[in-house]
Amino acid sequence: MGTESKRAEVMQNVIDASRMLIAKGICEAFGHVSARLPEADLFVITPKASMDVVEKPDDLVVVNLDGKRVEGKREQPLETWLHTCIYRVRPDIGGIARTHSFTTSVFSILGEDVKPVHDFGAILMRKVAVFQDSHLIENEEIGERLADFIGPEGTAALLRGNGTAVLGKDVIEATIRAIYLEESAILQFRARQIGKPIYFSATEVRERGTQLLESAHILRAWEHYKKSSR
Amino acid sequence: MGTESKRAEVMQNVIDASRMLIAKGICEAFGHVSARLPEADLFVITPKASMDVVEKPDDLVVVNLDGKRVEGKREQPLETWLHTCIYRVRPDIGGIARTHSFTTSVFSILGEDVKPVHDFGAILMRKVAVFQDSHLIENEEIGERLADFIGPEGTAALLRGNGTAVLGKDVIEATIRAIYLEESAILQFRARQIGKPIYFSATEVRERGTQLLESAHILRAWEHYKKSSR
Amino acid sequence: MGTESKRAEVMQNVIDASRMLIAKGICEAFGHVSARLPEADLFVITPKASMDVVEKPDDLVVVNLDGKRVEGKREQPLETWLHTCIYRVRPDIGGIARTHSFTTSVFSILGEDVKPVHDFGAILMRKVAVFQDSHLIENEEIGERLADFIGPEGTAALLRGNGTAVLGKDVIEATIRAIYLEESAILQFRARQIGKPIYFSATEVRERGTQLLESAHILRAWEHYKKSSR
Amino acid sequence: MGTESKRAEVMQNVIDASRMLIAKGICEAFGHVSARLPEADLFVITPKASMDVVEKPDDLVVVNLDGKRVEGKREQPLETWLHTCIYRVRPDIGGIARTHSFTTSVFSILGEDVKPVHDFGAILMRKVAVFQDSHLIENEEIGERLADFIGPEGTAALLRGNGTAVLGKDVIEATIRAIYLEESAILQFRARQIGKPIYFSATEVRERGTQLLESAHILRAWEHYKKSSR
Repeated sequence: MGTESKRAEVMQNVIDASRMLIAKGICEAFGHVSARLPEADLFVITPKASMDVVEKPDDLVVVNLDGKRVEGKREQPLETWLHTCIYRVRPDIGGIARTHSFTTSVFSILGEDVKPVHDFGAILMRKVAVFQDSHLIENEEIGERLADFIGPEGTAALLRGNGTAVLGKDVIEATIRAIYLEESAILQFRARQIGKPIYFSATEVRERGTQLLESAHILRAWEHYKKSSR
Repeated sequence: MGTESKRAEVMQNVIDASRMLIAKGICEAFGHVSARLPEADLFVITPKASMDVVEKPDDLVVVNLDGKRVEGKREQPLETWLHTCIYRVRPDIGGIARTHSFTTSVFSILGEDVKPVHDFGAILMRKVAVFQDSHLIENEEIGERLADFIGPEGTAALLRGNGTAVLGKDVIEATIRAIYLEESAILQFRARQIGKPIYFSATEVRERGTQLLESAHILRAWEHYKKSSR
Repeated sequence: MGTESKRAEVMQNVIDASRMLIAKGICEAFGHVSARLPEADLFVITPKASMDVVEKPDDLVVVNLDGKRVEGKREQPLETWLHTCIYRVRPDIGGIARTHSFTTSVFSILGEDVKPVHDFGAILMRKVAVFQDSHLIENEEIGERLADFIGPEGTAALLRGNGTAVLGKDVIEATIRAIYLEESAILQFRARQIGKPIYFSATEVRERGTQLLESAHILRAWEHYKKSSR
Repeated sequence: MGTESKRAEVMQNVIDASRMLIAKGICEAFGHVSARLPEADLFVITPKASMDVVEKPDDLVVVNLDGKRVEGKREQPLETWLHTCIYRVRPDIGGIARTHSFTTSVFSILGEDVKPVHDFGAILMRKVAVFQDSHLIENEEIGERLADFIGPEGTAALLRGNGTAVLGKDVIEATIRAIYLEESAILQFRARQIGKPIYFSATEVRERGTQLLESAHILRAWEHYKKSSR
């Protein structure tokens, strides 16, 4: 697929991801979604506004790895540094969802990890820990500390008191992970209300997660949520 | 009723069941529903896609008791074996719903049974236990183990970490059971959050369950949920 | 107001009450609402079907105090005896809502009373206790036992494992009480999840309840829920 | 901006706030919202009816600081004194939302404060305590006691058993605070169900709260909720 149509596809996915995350209640007035573009060292991100204003590629902002806007009439979000610093050190990552999902916030408030208890939660491939600094990720210094906290293989972090940062090989994987991370948190939370959850072992996480991350399963969830968000 | 119109009715019920289960949140992007057809040793099942693509009989897949597709342009689900193996050993069963209902998943994660606490939960006719293997039911060996676990009189099983399999004499009964199994789990869960639920005795389960399983009550619920899912 | 227009008004209120109770999730496929008619010893009730079929007076059933249908083409509910037996011994009662509200069912399952913790819960005027018999109220004997359990001043009862019976001077009061009884149960339930609720004293219940039961407040809630159920 | 167009803008904000608070479930049949008008010593308030009747400026009531209606064909609410007494002693306050948000009511019922656990909760700038008197704020004496309880710097109070009073420099700030106060209560409640929440320190509250109270963030939430309430 040529770069231009690949670019258009990536931008459409970011628009669809925005709509999906709002429809699922993972984001309301705040939060942002980004995706790497085919061109070297550029990514596209939802603007400094509620994601519900995002309807067409014109509404998005193109940013380079110095964190500077290179295209788009809207401003980029305050927390663009969250995305910039991760894309710099993680060539394997092609999409990031920064959400305010509710039950993951409960875990942040407790200072506790979210650990897989079901198949879909296993697509995060490991437990998700709390990045303790409660400041917004609004400058390079804290952006680098967060990327460092997530590490070379991490897929997400809980941000103390204000949501999550979820990573994927593309924005489809990042978005579906964001949705299932919240579901995973809810299941773990509910189970803990009346007993002791049986967590997936490291082997189970690896096997189930890898199996589900095959395009077919992730794409099936993506198509379902895209359809129900219209 | 002639075989052809009976066949059309069964297929329509499977389509309605799909819509109902999504509307009630019992299934989202994953899950499947099947029903035995009037012809010997055949059943119809929702395809390998989100159930929200199911709109007409053409979208369904007809499968035989060797697990092979004999009609339909779509693929059957990976977990068709869940259905095939149950239909083989349970001639009394005419419908199966494989769901991802949320609170039943909480019980799976705790490794605990769901037991009737109210009338509608009694239509499962007994407690529902956890099938501990967390693999998808994607081959004949595990399908047979699950059918064996459910046994000659079982009506459902909780699948560790990923939902339920619910059985009925037809797809109407299986679907309404799936809905009320989730309600039963929620009631039991909520009660346990602040005290000790009073479970129905075996006698109460038998009496209430049998009374409610008369067509009139189950059909009334079916018509209500069909209407509210449009 | 003449008897004929009063009769039409009562019937319309029963239709609106049905819609409201479904919209608020207090009833789904089961449940019934009734109201005394201006004529001596008659009441009108929703039919033996889901309340979502109720659209016009023709859909309702008129029953006398012997429990016999005297008007209407549909059948009366199995549990008409619940209504008949209460109307017989409570001349002050002009409306009854038999619901399946969710959190009140949790209290039934625990065998515990719902007690007022807020203003709106005070309109029940006292705590609401559990009628322990889990049979449907489907004959005169159990109907009389329930009316006796509620007593000469009771406003509601929790029915073990299957919902509530809520009484009012008319169907407007019964319906608004049913809605706020469920809210009261949820508040009490939530508070007990993390601490000890401060219940209203008998004096507070009497004062707040009486104040809110003035037509203006109850009618205001009625109009609001009627509007939001369309 | 001239007084007349400023007046029209304030009235429109009150109408939008009404719609938003109902859409978010913060108010149902009861509750009221007010805002100071540009003219000295006048404020506008939603009428003595469910806020869902509020569609145009004509539906609102203009009241002076003696609590008397000076404009509008509808009656003012019984609890106008809640607003009047606060506006009298708090020249910094330009908007008040009196809500019945659910989880804040749970805290009232427990007699416990709601304390910030996340960024958005920090916009209340401090913990919110319970005003213990369970009477409606329906006369000058209790209105003055409530204003005194809130104090010269308070931003909200929980009203025992029946909701909240939330203050802001204008009705936009009051409304967004009301929404995030409920969210804050839910997070604190959920965390306490399974562990011990980490509350924001006084410094964190001050820093995060001040940062978020800048118009851009509050306006962004306002625009989002206004759009999703249509």
